[in-house]
Amino acid sequence: MMPSTPELPTTYLADHADEAVDLLTQLCKQPSIAAQNYGIEAMTELTERLLAESGFQTRRLHYTSQAPAAVYGELRGSGPYTILLYNHYDVQPAEPLELWQSPPFEPTIREGKFFARGAVDNKGEIAARLAAIRALRATYGELPITLRWIIEGEEEIGSPHFEEIAEKYSELLQADGCLWEGAGFTDDGNPSLNLGTKGLLYVQMDVQGVGIDAHSGQAPILPSATWRLVQALASLRTPSGQVRIPGFYAAVRPPTDAQLGAIMQQKNKDEQLKQAHQVDHFVDGLSGVALRERVAFAPTCNIAGLNSGYTGDGVKTVLPAKAMAKIDFRLVPDQDPHEILRQLRSYLHEQGYDDINLTVLGAANPVVTPIDDPFVQKIRSIAETFADKPASISPIVGGSLPLLDALKRHVGLPGLSAPGNVGYWGSGAHAPNEHIRLTDLERAVRYNCYMFMALG
Amino acid sequence: MMPSTPELPTTYLADHADEAVDLLTQLCKQPSIAAQNYGIEAMTELTERLLAESGFQTRRLHYTSQAPAAVYGELRGSGPYTILLYNHYDVQPAEPLELWQSPPFEPTIREGKFFARGAVDNKGEIAARLAAIRALRATYGELPITLRWIIEGEEEIGSPHFEEIAEKYSELLQADGCLWEGAGFTDDGNPSLNLGTKGLLYVQMDVQGVGIDAHSGQAPILPSATWRLVQALASLRTPSGQVRIPGFYAAVRPPTDAQLGAIMQQKNKDEQLKQAHQVDHFVDGLSGVALRERVAFAPTCNIAGLNSGYTGDGVKTVLPAKAMAKIDFRLVPDQDPHEILRQLRSYLHEQGYDDINLTVLGAANPVVTPIDDPFVQKIRSIAETFADKPASISPIVGGSLPLLDALKRHVGLPGLSAPGNVGYWGSGAHAPNEHIRLTDLERAVRYNCYMFMALG
Repeated sequence: MMPSTPELPTTYLADHADEAVDLLTQLCKQPSIAAQNYGIEAMTELTERLLAESGFQTRRLHYTSQAPAAVYGELRGSGPYTILLYNHYDVQPAEPLELWQSPPFEPTIREGKFFARGAVDNKGEIAARLAAIRALRATYGELPITLRWIIEGEEEIGSPHFEEIAEKYSELLQADGCLWEGAGFTDDGNPSLNLGTKGLLYVQMDVQGVGIDAHSGQAPILPSATWRLVQALASLRTPSGQVRIPGFYAAVRPPTDAQLGAIMQQKNKDEQLKQAHQVDHFVDGLSGVALRERVAFAPTCNIAGLNSGYTGDGVKTVLPAKAMAKIDFRLVPDQDPHEILRQLRSYLHEQGYDDINLTVLGAANPVVTPIDDPFVQKIRSIAETFADKPASISPIVGGSLPLLDALKRHVGLPGLSAPGNVGYWGSGAHAPNEHIRLTDLERAVRYNCYMFMALG
Repeated sequence: MMPSTPELPTTYLADHADEAVDLLTQLCKQPSIAAQNYGIEAMTELTERLLAESGFQTRRLHYTSQAPAAVYGELRGSGPYTILLYNHYDVQPAEPLELWQSPPFEPTIREGKFFARGAVDNKGEIAARLAAIRALRATYGELPITLRWIIEGEEEIGSPHFEEIAEKYSELLQADGCLWEGAGFTDDGNPSLNLGTKGLLYVQMDVQGVGIDAHSGQAPILPSATWRLVQALASLRTPSGQVRIPGFYAAVRPPTDAQLGAIMQQKNKDEQLKQAHQVDHFVDGLSGVALRERVAFAPTCNIAGLNSGYTGDGVKTVLPAKAMAKIDFRLVPDQDPHEILRQLRSYLHEQGYDDINLTVLGAANPVVTPIDDPFVQKIRSIAETFADKPASISPIVGGSLPLLDALKRHVGLPGLSAPGNVGYWGSGAHAPNEHIRLTDLERAVRYNCYMFMALG
């Protein structure tokens, strides 16, 4: 018999206090860098094995044998309510390696924190969900709801095949609601709910000037790839940060009153953010509500990488043959990455930069679930009861999940990020020394237990 | 008895046809990258040994034990006329390594060409001078002139200690004239004479934004080191190549009629230059005399290196903490690198870029010997008689030799680059697959024999 009101499997959790850390250690020991195709196949196997060991009927979802499979599992519960869980088993590249205090794929615990690439983004959440499911099954035999879980392997490179997978396997992914990756608790213990993500356009710009690197004594007469790239980049943005591409802001929809209200109710985290990023101020001197509004609703043009010529120590007097930049645009509703790409190409053409080779490495629409959606209200109520505190709701967050657009169009579920994530403001997703606090991991396990039971 | 008119030691040269190549192979097998302090001590030993084996009384010229010594040798001849030879035993870094068809420090001969880092800049010239001296000594017992030879080990990093060495050892360096490194023959066999070099200011610009790399979802509110650097760089130069730093062109002295005349008499090498650099046009569509004037007399601001954030394959959505650029300014008379540095600092300050950290990695004054100097006319006459063709005179070349300024001030010799060098238009100094043609090496040996005899 299942209990009729949520009750935590406290005995099991006390007896297996290290289970989530053990799971996370297994997950983080295995490198899985999609951008470098490093460790992916072994990670797929490990992920499928851990789901199978937790009771899931598993299979691999393939669109093409050339790309990593998504791991899928179903765990039938006693009731009809069905939740789709989403995670990814791939991680960001670990560079710059020299800034890691311990190797990125050798999980290390220091002062109550667990350090490894992927600890927060997002192997920690996989570990917390697995540990909760194991505790519930061990204690109650089965869960009161059915779980469907898809864990893809290409999220950090923009989920290039997730759309095809979602379309091909849309029947497997049907549910009453989807829990994405991503949200945790505030430092005051308020549960966080994220209702959407920004869109993304990620492009690489390559310029070739001379055929091979030249002596810089020839600089008076040879075309410079480096100067071309610098000047093309400078034409994209004003020094104060406004994107100069005509039409870039045309489709931007202003936030609703409900969204602005949610932003106003969020706690002020300015000081934590400063500490996390080691800055003493934000752009334009922003703070408080204005800062949070900017993060939430502003589209951006960011340079993620830049390379040309000699970058070692000391002096080399060379005129470089090539120059390269990686650029990510974060987009807000209703900006369309394909339309932005068209505008970008058109602008570069008008500015005379037809010699710049543009390669699209990623594209995603922004996706936002309305605050008044019933699934959102249900999860909000459960999270607030668990925490005994009001939820902190983010109408849209700065990250991008290309897969959400695919899920929305091919599966059609309302979705959000519930507080099952294990990060905090200082976790350093995508950065060196990525880590989580062990106390956050432990709470995430308890929250997941509570939520799965309460949904039943 | 010495012959009274120049006569080549043809028998010895025929019997020892491989000596110059053997010497060059020894020199190029030994890496000697000053910028990376790679192989320098072993190269110093090798250089000193080869001079001693050729009859020189050698010693090392030290300013500080922290820096590579210059190798010095004196070879007394039968007459009073004394020539100072200058070379350097260090080479440029070999990156990008993947573009080399054979490893940079494994000399390889393909189709009559000798490939290795340093082959043309400037171990080939050292080998040619050594081979000529060995031939003359073996044939005549001694040379008709006294040779003093200084071979330094820091030329490719801007000769940071050569000034101190020139000052400390100025008595050892006294002579009637100095033969620098550098000039060869045109493709039509005209001897080239280079009478000067541009000045140099080499700086590194470093920007730090956030303390550690951040997720680019935070781009709306975090300062971007990369954008700062791009915008600061773009402020330095117009898209058409004019330097925007106020006062940059103020000290530029227009070329003299004699200098312009020398430029006009140079052969047109446009097509070879296009082939060497793999371009189909030069900046501003320049060609012929206008192209040669631009190379000779235009100061430049070149970006030699650029680095920020993620530069590997694929996607990483990161806001980089740091950004770096290496910039070399080539200066013409009477631009002063310290004045240009002052102007640069002042301009960056006025433009609001006080957050950009500027490190000076090299500085040199431009140095030019007048066309009508008696030593210039003497070498010109010898070279024209040897080649039976008029000389091609470059009043100033695009490279920079900080040491020339030091020699001029502390030793006070007229100097030039005579046709003892072994390169041609396609040699690729500083570039991957640097090489020389073996026929040019052989001619350089003969020319050096002829010149040493004719000066006596």
